[in-house]
Amino acid sequence: MNTYKIAVIPGDGIGNEVVPKALEVLKQAAELNGTFQLECTTFPWSCDYYMEHGKMMPDDGLEQLKKFDAIFLGAVGDPARVPDHVSLWGLLLKIRRQFKQQLNVRPAKYLKGLESPLKNPKGFDLVIVRENSEGEYSEVGGRIYQGEDEIAIQNNVFSRKASERAMHYAFQLAEKRKNYVTSATKSNGIVYSMPFWDEIFKSVSEKYNIKTDSFHIDALSAYFITKPEMFDVVVASNLFGDILSDIGAAIMGSIGIAPAANIHLDGEYPSMFEPVHGSAPDIAGKGIANPIGQIWTGKMMLDHLGEKNAADNIMSAIEQTIANGIKTPDLSGSASTKEVTEAIISYLK
Amino acid sequence: MNTYKIAVIPGDGIGNEVVPKALEVLKQAAELNGTFQLECTTFPWSCDYYMEHGKMMPDDGLEQLKKFDAIFLGAVGDPARVPDHVSLWGLLLKIRRQFKQQLNVRPAKYLKGLESPLKNPKGFDLVIVRENSEGEYSEVGGRIYQGEDEIAIQNNVFSRKASERAMHYAFQLAEKRKNYVTSATKSNGIVYSMPFWDEIFKSVSEKYNIKTDSFHIDALSAYFITKPEMFDVVVASNLFGDILSDIGAAIMGSIGIAPAANIHLDGEYPSMFEPVHGSAPDIAGKGIANPIGQIWTGKMMLDHLGEKNAADNIMSAIEQTIANGIKTPDLSGSASTKEVTEAIISYLK
Ligand SMILES: CC(C)[C@H](C(=O)O)[C@@H](O)C(=O)O
Ligand SMILES: CC(C)[C@H](C(=O)O)[C@@H](O)C(=O)O
Repeated sequence: MNTYKIAVIPGDGIGNEVVPKALEVLKQAAELNGTFQLECTTFPWSCDYYMEHGKMMPDDGLEQLKKFDAIFLGAVGDPARVPDHVSLWGLLLKIRRQFKQQLNVRPAKYLKGLESPLKNPKGFDLVIVRENSEGEYSEVGGRIYQGEDEIAIQNNVFSRKASERAMHYAFQLAEKRKNYVTSATKSNGIVYSMPFWDEIFKSVSEKYNIKTDSFHIDALSAYFITKPEMFDVVVASNLFGDILSDIGAAIMGSIGIAPAANIHLDGEYPSMFEPVHGSAPDIAGKGIANPIGQIWTGKMMLDHLGEKNAADNIMSAIEQTIANGIKTPDLSGSASTKEVTEAIISYLK
Repeated sequence: MNTYKIAVIPGDGIGNEVVPKALEVLKQAAELNGTFQLECTTFPWSCDYYMEHGKMMPDDGLEQLKKFDAIFLGAVGDPARVPDHVSLWGLLLKIRRQFKQQLNVRPAKYLKGLESPLKNPKGFDLVIVRENSEGEYSEVGGRIYQGEDEIAIQNNVFSRKASERAMHYAFQLAEKRKNYVTSATKSNGIVYSMPFWDEIFKSVSEKYNIKTDSFHIDALSAYFITKPEMFDVVVASNLFGDILSDIGAAIMGSIGIAPAANIHLDGEYPSMFEPVHGSAPDIAGKGIANPIGQIWTGKMMLDHLGEKNAADNIMSAIEQTIANGIKTPDLSGSASTKEVTEAIISYLK
């Protein structure tokens, strides 16, 4: 029996509602599978924790997390009490950075029964591979001058290593899927970082026998709306991947179902699994948060741990639940978080 | 009789097809109006020109353009012959920068009869005010190290002056519309430029009695798909405005109809009017390019010149043409560039 040690961080808002539900599903899938178990340790790090301790996690927080096989996180942020940059950079982005989780992998898939805002969603099935450690989110910058002359400078830092790593991952993923990689660029307007990105994409693509394309982010965002079915794997910088994955979530019908994995590749630190959605203070506490984003994220965690059967089992239970119309209000349904979770558990085999 | 001197630059690809058609509409609208006329001078600056002269425009090109009341441009770019950064920065972006066209104004409006890819487009009517001179498109940056250690740095430069200017324009526009301004930010991930942008937005908003909101660009892109009808004026940085305006064009049904104005505010240089779409080499020469983007752009030029009656006349002719199903193939119609133009002219009053 394999035992995986999971660090659980429910975080803020609906994170506290969907994480326990997702764990019920994961544990049931593990039990039915019979060859592995999850040993979960919950950490209360959140804005509540911040209000009490003046920080988002203890000073040795990363040390504590380091020994786990994976981190399962809900959502971080409660802007009414703690400024976003404090909560996010104190917990979520800190873990992404310090644990060198260089890739953020985000599928967007049309599932039967979903209410896509698109008239004709035509079965799209794509994965965004987002560079997760640098680019437009670098912490390098500052301000100069005062008053009306004030200027802020933000450096976008693109390294060949990190870009290549994201691209190799994208190509290897495409080899297992539909053999097509699209690069998100903007080299016609952004003249240092993006032509560099394009050059690297060209040289990495030469190592694979895979169809490629490259679109500027403006056009690519539009194609996600007008013909999402054309894409397979899309590789993008930190910011572009962020934007594309919210568009991917929107065309699926709700950000409430979009899953994500922050992947560390070198075996030194755990990877972190957290859905695309945030803490949604507006609906927190009402019992209506969609648990599917978190559950699908759990499915990605099992895939990452090598438990493909249990992962596939969860995915088909999610698909059946949606196809049978058991949906929370964000998907135009009337089911509660609990009801959707119970349905998914009932469909596990 | 007012005479406006217009510099016409058809540019590349379909620019050569839609610009002459748009001029026919503008001239007819002027004639029907009876109080002004357009005196047009055409400049052949384009990738063809580049192939012959090794530059996109003559050395004194800007000098020649400076004396006009407005510039009416089609599209620039022919990547099969001239790299985009050469053609765009040698002509389009050069004019935007050198003539201090600090705002790029781009409406997106649901017109009756349009085939939006959205299931339920619900009459959205919004305008994107894009900062057009700096931000993520700064020409500051470079590379360091070689081989696998190579790094590219791109500086995003945000000045209080340019940001304020875009925001004041947005608020003043909203006062004439639905009194609501949304700011596109990403201050949770981009920690120098975007918090600066947010601060400026807050201080400018205090000068107006207008409802405001601020969304991160990822969420905002999704809202453009799930509830575009909620927006009025959206103010955004150079890159975010670029992305949002392509999404705006996509939800309208085709980038072929999306108009734009590059506005210079200080009376020192002409403003430039060019649609959102590019030169579209794939459909150039087939007589099927949608002329509406260029014609609607011409409407914006007349508005800018103070000819509101003629501008309104053109807009309602465009709306009638679309409502009557006279549409080019990009809008799922079968009419030619010429037929759409003739229909619009026939509806002018
Ligand atoms: C061609 C390109 C540089 C340009 C831009 O990004 O500004 C275009 O996409 C636009 O929106 O006008
Ligand atoms: C909260 C924010 C910093 C984060 C990001 O942009 O990375 C979020 O939008 C995401 O996509 O995970």
